[in-house]
Amino acid sequence: MIAISSRQSAVIQAFRKLERDSAYRKACGQFSADGRKLLREALRSGAEIETVLWKEKRDESFPVFPNEYLLPPDLFDYVSSQKNSPGPLFTVSFSESSFPSKPKQVLVLEGIQDPGNLGTILRTAEAFDIDGVILLEDCADPYSPKAVRATMGAVFRPRFRLMDRSTVSDFCREKGLPLWGAALRDDAVDILKVNLNHAAVAIGSEGRGLSKELLACCDGSLIIPMRGISESLNASVAAAVVLWEMQCGGARCTGSGSHN
Amino acid sequence: MIAISSRQSAVIQAFRKLERDSAYRKACGQFSADGRKLLREALRSGAEIETVLWKEKRDESFPVFPNEYLLPPDLFDYVSSQKNSPGPLFTVSFSESSFPSKPKQVLVLEGIQDPGNLGTILRTAEAFDIDGVILLEDCADPYSPKAVRATMGAVFRPRFRLMDRSTVSDFCREKGLPLWGAALRDDAVDILKVNLNHAAVAIGSEGRGLSKELLACCDGSLIIPMRGISESLNASVAAAVVLWEMQCGGARCTGSGSHN
Repeated sequence: MIAISSRQSAVIQAFRKLERDSAYRKACGQFSADGRKLLREALRSGAEIETVLWKEKRDESFPVFPNEYLLPPDLFDYVSSQKNSPGPLFTVSFSESSFPSKPKQVLVLEGIQDPGNLGTILRTAEAFDIDGVILLEDCADPYSPKAVRATMGAVFRPRFRLMDRSTVSDFCREKGLPLWGAALRDDAVDILKVNLNHAAVAIGSEGRGLSKELLACCDGSLIIPMRGISESLNASVAAAVVLWEMQCGGARCTGSGSHN
Repeated sequence: MIAISSRQSAVIQAFRKLERDSAYRKACGQFSADGRKLLREALRSGAEIETVLWKEKRDESFPVFPNEYLLPPDLFDYVSSQKNSPGPLFTVSFSESSFPSKPKQVLVLEGIQDPGNLGTILRTAEAFDIDGVILLEDCADPYSPKAVRATMGAVFRPRFRLMDRSTVSDFCREKGLPLWGAALRDDAVDILKVNLNHAAVAIGSEGRGLSKELLACCDGSLIIPMRGISESLNASVAAAVVLWEMQCGGARCTGSGSHN
């Protein structure tokens, strides 16, 4: 295994860029991930791993990768965008999204700019087996280090796709899915009364909610009722409630007319 | 208003400690919070605000506080535990928890060490109007800056209390609440089949789950079923599902025998 000690090394400079530059990731068709747990997840998911940077010492429980380098701690910390990561850092090639051609349940995200929230939502969507997540153009980059970490591996099995705001309602119509906007509006329907077995639900940012443009092309708006005095939820919590209701909304009330 | 320019100032040193030292916060009976939004929340909640540190410029839309200081940006950043905070930083006295004497719905947290997750859970518990949250001794400090920020103000209206692991089951028994442990066990009951109208539910850390000690004194264990391949949820997401089910579990299925 090759040891690197210089910040000027081409490998180091390229990796640093991968950690920090979304456009560079797109151009390379690769992103970076961090830590033994994610490396195991990547292997388990059949992800294409090209380069691995080890901090100080290789973990011999892992198989051999095409390119491996050994870095002293300070150089490793120079590359990593995380503080005091034990490593390793590794590159993963973008894999094709398995967003299905005939989705039944879709989550649409608008303006989720916190990468941790975005990654958590992708993780939750996978856990509840939602067909796909649509990211509108103003969301965080799902391949940024913080988002990747929060997905806990879901990013290696992508079921999301990027889309323009102007396209999403046509897309849903074509797929036969009513598009619901999560909103604090007087005319919004209680989420428990909405059939989510065939539906797309759009969630906006905590501060601003959904844009007028997107709300205007929704078929209806739904609300997560809150008994308490607070009027807002963390974006990943609001998404969790929606995804949970998507998973088991139809199954729980066999006697109810509002669920099929 | 007094301007401070020296790192050696007693005000600066005390505030830095408040930002970083949990034991010091306890000794002072105060914690620190950050930002205009939280300052508005603190005022709205009737919190006792003593000292405010402004970064460069006072925001005149706020009332006068007992002690206010003006700091140059670099000195402000030296005090703040957050990067590039626009401020202000302010102190808040601990207020008495409104944890009720006869709670109906209680969340018990064990080993939630990520302060962001802990704060988010407290925020969600307030939004869904859960009576109280019990923090076992190995959770993050709810008054740490990251936790405070994630509560989005719920920390100014505390409904949580700290407790020893050994005490919690006696407490629940005394209050007439069955104690459920959220766990991935074969004998765990689907959360949708549990009556959560009068119940305490314990949630553990993502990595380790609940301790054997705590599980041993639970009356039963419940599971959040997941359709997908992932076997875990972010701790604040798992808590969100439990809290959501506590809020509306009893109300949704009027015909079901498993809910009252």
